[in-house]
Amino acid sequence: MKIQLDCLPCFLSQILRASRMAMDNEETQAKILKAAIDIIKEYNSYRYAPEVGRAMHLLVKQHTGIADPYQRLKQKHLELALQYYPDLKRFLFQKSDRLYWVFKIAAVGNVFDAAINSDIRDSDYLRKELPKEFKICDIERFRDHLKNSRTMLIIGDNAGETVFDRVLVEEMLNLNIIYAVRSGPIINDATVEDAESAGLNRQARIISTGCDAPGVILSECDREFLKVFLEADIVISKGQGNYETLSDEKREIFFLLKAKCPVIAADLGVDLGDYVFIFRINN
Amino acid sequence: MKIQLDCLPCFLSQILRASRMAMDNEETQAKILKAAIDIIKEYNSYRYAPEVGRAMHLLVKQHTGIADPYQRLKQKHLELALQYYPDLKRFLFQKSDRLYWVFKIAAVGNVFDAAINSDIRDSDYLRKELPKEFKICDIERFRDHLKNSRTMLIIGDNAGETVFDRVLVEEMLNLNIIYAVRSGPIINDATVEDAESAGLNRQARIISTGCDAPGVILSECDREFLKVFLEADIVISKGQGNYETLSDEKREIFFLLKAKCPVIAADLGVDLGDYVFIFRINN
Repeated sequence: MKIQLDCLPCFLSQILRASRMAMDNEETQAKILKAAIDIIKEYNSYRYAPEVGRAMHLLVKQHTGIADPYQRLKQKHLELALQYYPDLKRFLFQKSDRLYWVFKIAAVGNVFDAAINSDIRDSDYLRKELPKEFKICDIERFRDHLKNSRTMLIIGDNAGETVFDRVLVEEMLNLNIIYAVRSGPIINDATVEDAESAGLNRQARIISTGCDAPGVILSECDREFLKVFLEADIVISKGQGNYETLSDEKREIFFLLKAKCPVIAADLGVDLGDYVFIFRINN
Repeated sequence: MKIQLDCLPCFLSQILRASRMAMDNEETQAKILKAAIDIIKEYNSYRYAPEVGRAMHLLVKQHTGIADPYQRLKQKHLELALQYYPDLKRFLFQKSDRLYWVFKIAAVGNVFDAAINSDIRDSDYLRKELPKEFKICDIERFRDHLKNSRTMLIIGDNAGETVFDRVLVEEMLNLNIIYAVRSGPIINDATVEDAESAGLNRQARIISTGCDAPGVILSECDREFLKVFLEADIVISKGQGNYETLSDEKREIFFLLKAKCPVIAADLGVDLGDYVFIFRINN
C-alpha cells in the first residue's frame, strides 16, 4: 500500500508523542521533530509507511540515547493482556462458533497499538470491544483453507497482542504454527522475547522475520522467514503495519486487524474502528 | 502565545484539507504539502501560529491559482447563520440573564471554523451548543466595565460567526461599536464584505485591521485600527487565532471563543470544546 498524503501529518504526531514518552525535554523533542520533518519531506523515497515509521523512531533512539523507549509500555501491555487471558478463554467457551470468535479475540488484541494511541487499554475497553462483530469477515474462506492445511504462519504485530494471539493458536491444534515477529524493538511491536513472555512458545514456533520495521518488508527479511512465508499453507497477517507492507504481495494472505487510521479504513472500505478479517490474493 | 510543537502536525493536516478543498489534483496537493513542510521546519522564525497559517494558505492560492478557495464555504456559512438568526433572537428573548446568553450566542458563532473543521455546522449542532454554559466566564468583570464605557471594539474571526456577533451588537445599544475584520480573504475568516452581508453595518462601524493573517498581528495593523484598539473602552477578541496573537498584549482584553484545539484548551486550562469568556490584562 502506497504512502498517502494523510500519513505525513500523522507521522509527525506519532513522533512527537514518541519523543515525549521517551524524554521530558522540549529541546530534544523539537530536535527530533525537525529531523522528522526532513524525513517526511522525502516520503517519496520510501515504499511503505512503516519504513518511514522506522526511520523516525530511530531518531527518537538517537536523540534520547534510549535504545527501547517502549520497553516499559510493552511490559505493562503484556501484564494487562495476561491478566485478561482467563476472561478471553471464558468468553470463547460461551460461543458456539468458536472459530469466528477466536479470530475476533485475536483482532481485539490489535488495540495495543502505541503508534496510534499510547494509553493503556483497560479491561473495560477490552470488554466492550470483544462482542463487536467483524465488518468484513472471510471466515468461510478460512474454513475452506483449513481443510487442506498443515502449516500456518502468523505475522505478529504488537507486544500485548501476542497474548490474544495465543488464544487463537491454542484453538488451532491440528496445525503447525509459526509465529513471526520483528527482529528488534520498534515502537511497541512484539519481539521474540515478548512473544515468549506471552507464552506463545508452548504451541507455536516463534521466529524473527529478520526485519525491524513496524511492518514486514519482504526484501529485508531473512531466508528462514521467507521460506516459511512462501511455503506456509495459510498466512495470517496481523495489524495495520503488516497490511501496509503486504497488501500488494502476490500470495494468499488473511489480514486480521482493527482499522485504526482513516487511510487504512478507506483502503479496506470500512469505517474507522471496524474489525476486519479479509482474504486477499493479488495477481 | 508561542507556537507549540503540537502545532506542526496540525499545520500539515490543515493545509492538506485546504488544498483538497481548493483542487481535486493529488499532484498539486503533494506540491503544496512539500512546500508547507519547508515552512513548518522554520517555525521558529514565526512569532505566532496564525503567521504560519497565512504562509501556508498562501501556498494553496499560489499552487492552485484560486485567489479565495474558501469563498463558497464562507457564503454557505453566512447563509446558514442568517437562516438561524431568528432562532438566536428567540433563544435570547427567553433568557432572564440576557447579557450572559448573548455572549454565549456570540461564542457559539465561533464554531464556523474551516481551519479546524470544514464541515458545515448544521442547525441541529448549533441547537445543541447554544444551551451549554461557559467553562470560564468573566461576565461580572464585563458588567463592571460596561458602567463606564462608551466604545467597544470587537475583533471578528470567521465569516459565518459575524451573524452571531450581530446579535451581540444589537444588545449593546448604549455603546459605539467598531467591528474589525481581516484586510483580505484568509481561510474562512470574515472580511468587510462578509460582515456587511451579515448586516453588522447597521449597528456597528466595520473596519479592516489592516492585517490579513488569521489572527490580528498588531505590528502589521494600520493606524486606524491601532488607534481604536488602544483607545476603545472595551476590546473583545473573538476566536483562537486572535487569542494566539493577542493573549500576551499589554491591554485589557476580553477573549471570547470555543476551545477547539488541545494546545489552546491547555493554555486556557479548559477541556477541548469548552466555551470561554475570559478577561486578561498583562503587565
